[in-house]
Amino acid sequence: MRLAELSECSGVPVASIKFYLREGLLAPGAPVTARQAEYGEDHVRRLRLIRAMLKVGGMSVTQARDVLAVADDPASDRHERLGIAAAMLPPHVAEPTEGNPAALARWRAVHDELRTLLVDELGWRLHDAAPALNTLTRAVIALRDLGYRCTLEYLRRYATALHPIADKEYLVIEEFAVPDEAIEATVAYTVLYEPIILALRRLAHEDVSARRYRTARLRSESVT
Amino acid sequence: MRLAELSECSGVPVASIKFYLREGLLAPGAPVTARQAEYGEDHVRRLRLIRAMLKVGGMSVTQARDVLAVADDPASDRHERLGIAAAMLPPHVAEPTEGNPAALARWRAVHDELRTLLVDELGWRLHDAAPALNTLTRAVIALRDLGYRCTLEYLRRYATALHPIADKEYLVIEEFAVPDEAIEATVAYTVLYEPIILALRRLAHEDVSARRYRTARLRSESVT
Repeated sequence: MRLAELSECSGVPVASIKFYLREGLLAPGAPVTARQAEYGEDHVRRLRLIRAMLKVGGMSVTQARDVLAVADDPASDRHERLGIAAAMLPPHVAEPTEGNPAALARWRAVHDELRTLLVDELGWRLHDAAPALNTLTRAVIALRDLGYRCTLEYLRRYATALHPIADKEYLVIEEFAVPDEAIEATVAYTVLYEPIILALRRLAHEDVSARRYRTARLRSESVT
Repeated sequence: MRLAELSECSGVPVASIKFYLREGLLAPGAPVTARQAEYGEDHVRRLRLIRAMLKVGGMSVTQARDVLAVADDPASDRHERLGIAAAMLPPHVAEPTEGNPAALARWRAVHDELRTLLVDELGWRLHDAAPALNTLTRAVIALRDLGYRCTLEYLRRYATALHPIADKEYLVIEEFAVPDEAIEATVAYTVLYEPIILALRRLAHEDVSARRYRTARLRSESVT
């Protein structure tokens, strides 16, 4: 298909497609004449992923290009490519600098505590530099700094409840047979399902609260 | 305790405490002299919640004040207060305006579809205007617009997996005996545990990927 058709088919404006081509996010089409190129289903799929990363994932063009470079690199094995692509998704949290030894020592203590729980106790196979472990460390420190409890027992409960969900999510990703598509799907589903999970958790809270504090009538009855 | 002590005890700078007092987020202390007031444990707890809402929850001062006004209102029952406080937490998503009839019709169709799944099929007790249902509607439409599948079957799977987690979270909140503290705890845990849940999900993905695509060796062994 030509550029105009690619735009129609993907729902992405022509100007945006040209921008992604210039920025190297989208591979050029097969040249037909000096001014025209032919695009295929690969381009439609890739445009979908680019839009997901930029519009929903809140990634920068540079971050998106880096993730795509990994997804396109045939040198590493599938887990490695999935892992590296996932690792590049924001947020990026770095450990405190050496300039603040107290903060750094505390960071490392919490980081070790979380690693021991997940890797040694629960047997999760995590990269030594797993980026989400940094995000987790920061969140746990923030919670405790505010004086709220965040014990290993709570975290164990969350971890064991979330693992079966993550496992089932891979069933969806595995429906995509081609390895390249699986990597695209991993990136897309990781980012795109986050707001869905948070919204469903809040709705579940509402139900639990209604059941615990309102035995007599449904909340909706009092509103309508 | 005096202002300086309150600052030390809560870890919040004196200037910030004065700002929260001026903005009506924090109740004044009991007057001791014309220029001095006495603060108690209630103030320490309230400061913790204010910091959680502003620093971690990303709420504005106005939003935080509105949530606190509901938490402090003795007129409504406990579920109502918990529900209203939770409803005021960001993000706030509104349905499309009447000016775009096609978008509005689609929005309402997806909204009804989700409501039928959660309320009629799963029996969740939700407010007619449950705000997280709007967030969920927007996320599902975004996913489908990008061409990714988001079937009711997937959503049912997430909903049934997340409900027991939400239920256990209430055990933590119920440890706070005083109703006012329970409302504070609901707001705080709703906001503060979101990054923890997302980080643990990503780590669980890494483990699942390692198990599926690397049977022979651990990823960490290849890195160290």
